[in-house]
Order: sequence, then structure tokens, then C-alpha cells
Amino acid sequence: MSITFYYTPHTSASRVHWVLEELGVPYDKVKLDLRAGDQHKPEFLAINPNGKVPALVVDGTPLFESLAIILYLGDRFGVDKGLWPRVGSSEYAEALSWSVWGSVTLGGTIFRIFFNTSEWFPADSRNALQAEAATKEFEAALKVLDQRLQGREYLVGSGFTLVDAANAAALAWALSFIKTDIAAYPAVGAWIERCVSRPANRAVEAG
Amino acid sequence: MSITFYYTPHTSASRVHWVLEELGVPYDKVKLDLRAGDQHKPEFLAINPNGKVPALVVDGTPLFESLAIILYLGDRFGVDKGLWPRVGSSEYAEALSWSVWGSVTLGGTIFRIFFNTSEWFPADSRNALQAEAATKEFEAALKVLDQRLQGREYLVGSGFTLVDAANAAALAWALSFIKTDIAAYPAVGAWIERCVSRPANRAVEAG
Repeated sequence: MSITFYYTPHTSASRVHWVLEELGVPYDKVKLDLRAGDQHKPEFLAINPNGKVPALVVDGTPLFESLAIILYLGDRFGVDKGLWPRVGSSEYAEALSWSVWGSVTLGGTIFRIFFNTSEWFPADSRNALQAEAATKEFEAALKVLDQRLQGREYLVGSGFTLVDAANAAALAWALSFIKTDIAAYPAVGAWIERCVSRPANRAVEAG
Repeated sequence: MSITFYYTPHTSASRVHWVLEELGVPYDKVKLDLRAGDQHKPEFLAINPNGKVPALVVDGTPLFESLAIILYLGDRFGVDKGLWPRVGSSEYAEALSWSVWGSVTLGGTIFRIFFNTSEWFPADSRNALQAEAATKEFEAALKVLDQRLQGREYLVGSGFTLVDAANAAALAWALSFIKTDIAAYPAVGAWIERCVSRPANRAVEAG
């Protein structure tokens, strides 16, 4: 079996990197220089026609989208290690719901705030009212997450799974630029810390 | 086995409805009246704490997020019918990539345009420059899709799968309000028509 991981640090590739480290599967890394335009080269577009990191090639088959890669790795390598529920179990239904929620519902509000507040985008394309509305939705999502984590250490089942990595990574990034009082969601704050302090994530952060 | 489907017509629940009809599995329907606030009632929040349609309960286990529900139904009921690839196959990797792409990359641009153009949102929270930038990204995604569909009838494998339903439903909705020239992406236009004209989708549209 061969796995090649295409990534750039400090992007959504980082959560895939964390997941690969948790799984302990052997893989090769290829770092793309986005400023040099590596993502637009024909050899990379053959893997991900969108020209974005992350991408993964498993035995010749390309995967793109960080969520798709995490779901694939979970099914294939996570079940025996207790990091992903078995297909068809009730925990599997929960893992799918919460993983997708992190990328679509929670992720949607995070990017909406990002587009309307980040200096990456021209000032006249940003709208403060939209950022405010999206921040309210972000806080509603944090409240849902906080309720889910009442009396639970992790999102699904009784131990840490890749669902936690996928969501905690997105939230840790979001909280680096969204102005909100995380102390209002104590179960979320404690859970993020519990997740990001895992050795697999610290190894990725250390580069 | 029991399946209960919670939905409201003309929402993202419609693509799940289409998928249920394609699969031919027996299910009960519960229609929620969003204006009456059915989605905020405690009995529904116990199923989807986000208070959104669609939701699905399979043998007592709740699922939410339309993408999560489609992935679950594909794995569980679609493989034997040829509507979903077997876990671990190379087509499975492609199905995950393209399904998630539809909800995150394509879906992200669609919602960004929606938030900045729709009269559902206050005029002073919408930004024309942001809508323009998002429309360019939407058109880039259409180009990627058009290239993928060169010489193919469907997105993955040789026949129609739930990946096509998930993406075609999202695009048909998007093209109802996004000003773009779909004729510039002829393979996409033909594929949408091929998908949405299927009897399972027409049955859902007929209500």
C-alpha cells in the first residue's frame, strides 16, 4: 500500500495531517508552495482538478476535500484502532452527522465570517452586518456543540475519534480570528484543549 | 427496520427525498412547517439539535446534515443496487471526494452568492463585490465539473449514482438564482438534465 499526502502547512490540510499521525499509517509527504503556484501545475491538477490542498493518493487513487479524505481514512484504517466507528453502527451515523456538520454548518458560518472580516479580501467586498449575522450563527453552533459535550469527553462514543480531530481543528482555527467569548461554552473550550493537546496534533504543529 | 424522514419541500431535504426514492427503501415522512416553528420543538431538537431539515431516524438512531444522510444511505442501501460504490473501492474514494466537493467547495460558493444577492437577507448586509467574486469561483467550479464530465455520463463509475443526485440537486437550485451562462459548460448542462429528469426526482418535485 502507498499513501502520498499533498499539503501546505496552516491550511485545511493540517487536520488531515493530524489524522494521518493519529492513525499511524505510513505515508509520504509532498509540500506544495502555494505562492509559487505549485497547486496549478498539471501534475497536481491531475490529482485535484480544483488546484487546492489537501489531496491524498492511495494506491494510485486520488482523493480531495479534507472531509472526504478523513472519512475515507477513518473507514479504511480507523476502525481497528478505535478511531472510527464500524460502518452501519449507530456511532457511525453519529460520526457522519457530526463530521459533515463541522464542514458544512459550522464551517459555513466560519468561512462567512472570514470572508467578511479578513484582510485577505478587499475592504469593499466585506460587510460588517453580514459578519455580525454569521457570528450569531457561529455562536448558535457553539451552543449546540456545548450541549452535545455535556457529560461527554468526546463527540461520538466513549473515546477520541477522528470526528473530534476534524471539528477541533476547524474550531481552533476559527477562534484565532473570530471575536467570541469561548468561556460561555465551557464544555467546548475544555474539549478543544483535550483534542489539540494530543501528541499527534502537537507533532503536526511542530512541523 | 424503520426509517422516518423529516423534511420540508424546497429545502436541502429535497435531495435526500430524491435519494430515498432512488433507493426504493420503505420510509415514513414527517413534513415540518418551518413558518410555524416545528423545527424548534423539543421533540425535533432531540433528533437534530440544530433545528434544521432534513433529518432521518433509522431504527432509533438520528442523522442530520443532508450530505451525512446521503453517505449513510449510500453505504447501507445503495451498494447492492449499483447506486453507491463498495467501501474501499477506488470509485468509493471518488464518490466521497465529489460528494463532499458538492457540499463544501461548490456549496460554499453557492451559499456565498445566496447570502449576497437574495432578498431573504437585509439589503445592507449584502455586498455586490463579494457576490461577484463568489460567482467567479462558482464558474471555476462549473469548469472543473465540465472537465470531469467530458466523455462521461455520470460523475463516478459508468452509471448514475447518489453522487449525481447530491450534486445535480444543489446545482439545479443554484442555477435558479445565479446569473451565469450554463451554455458555457455544455457537459454540465446535459448531465443536470439527465439527472433531474429521472423518475425518482420527478416524483419528489410533483410532491
